[in-house]
Amino acid sequence: MSQRPLPEILASRMLARSRLFSIEELTLRFSNGVERVYERLPVRGHPGVIVVALNERREIMLIREYAAGFHEVQLSLPKGAAHVGETLEYAADRELKEEIGFGARHVEFVKRVTLAPGHMGFTINIMFAKDLYPEQLPGDEPEPIEVVPWPLERLDELLRSPDFTEARAIAALTLTRELMEKA
Amino acid sequence: MSQRPLPEILASRMLARSRLFSIEELTLRFSNGVERVYERLPVRGHPGVIVVALNERREIMLIREYAAGFHEVQLSLPKGAAHVGETLEYAADRELKEEIGFGARHVEFVKRVTLAPGHMGFTINIMFAKDLYPEQLPGDEPEPIEVVPWPLERLDELLRSPDFTEARAIAALTLTRELMEKA
Repeated sequence: MSQRPLPEILASRMLARSRLFSIEELTLRFSNGVERVYERLPVRGHPGVIVVALNERREIMLIREYAAGFHEVQLSLPKGAAHVGETLEYAADRELKEEIGFGARHVEFVKRVTLAPGHMGFTINIMFAKDLYPEQLPGDEPEPIEVVPWPLERLDELLRSPDFTEARAIAALTLTRELMEKA
Repeated sequence: MSQRPLPEILASRMLARSRLFSIEELTLRFSNGVERVYERLPVRGHPGVIVVALNERREIMLIREYAAGFHEVQLSLPKGAAHVGETLEYAADRELKEEIGFGARHVEFVKRVTLAPGHMGFTINIMFAKDLYPEQLPGDEPEPIEVVPWPLERLDELLRSPDFTEARAIAALTLTRELMEKA
């Protein structure tokens, strides 16, 4: 997209590696000769999905679950990582069955988004699901997730609510809005 | 918001700490008695801002800059961390001067959003700026940032574009859309 050359990676080394995360140090030389040391969190694990699921009453299936980053219970969307060999569509359908107790006859890919691309390689795939039917699969959650159906017609109120803060979820609802309104 | 009790933190320890990041391990006991070990990235540093700035031609001031997480040049919005003692409004105005060469006579707070609250304590404050005037401040960027004015009337195209992927930026544009349209 840009004509500007990428910086050259003069050196890279892993500073730390835990079960879930790695911290990597990059020594970079930019095209103007400036050298800088950056840190980044490289991507780990399988692709993730975040799922906007609309039920037959035109409600968005939100969840309330424990968010360790804030030690709080927070309102968000169903999400999770694909298992080995799963398509994104399959993973989205399975996560819905595990987290909200519904499968979806229609699942479509919407867009892959990034979190903080200056510092992290993480991405998540926004998926849209409709034509839901009851089916529960056992998940890996430590406790049952609370499901909060939210009327599509009150979407703007949700996006503005101080209780709904996850940028990925706000992006997912924005990018599926037209699909939901046409559904 | 929820009646369900938070899990009890039985133990916590820092697994790693670099210049920018920390990795923390939490041992949790949920109210149903299930115990789990979680990892999270606690918040570090000062509050951040991401700024939607609209110029007098009704263009959104995008930037294209190096994103180390992907070793790519990517399209996004101006952003950065507040310095000690700065208000969010002041920090937003300063970042604009450093990154796009404009100050703003009007800056307002829109919403604080999270990135991946299940795993990270990071937040960023969405700010809206208008009434721009030329003023350049020296920033800490290794090379000049390319400024890409984008017509407000083509906002939907931007949100859908595979070249514009940052969930925080998509959320910021969504939540400032009404302010931009009224400006």
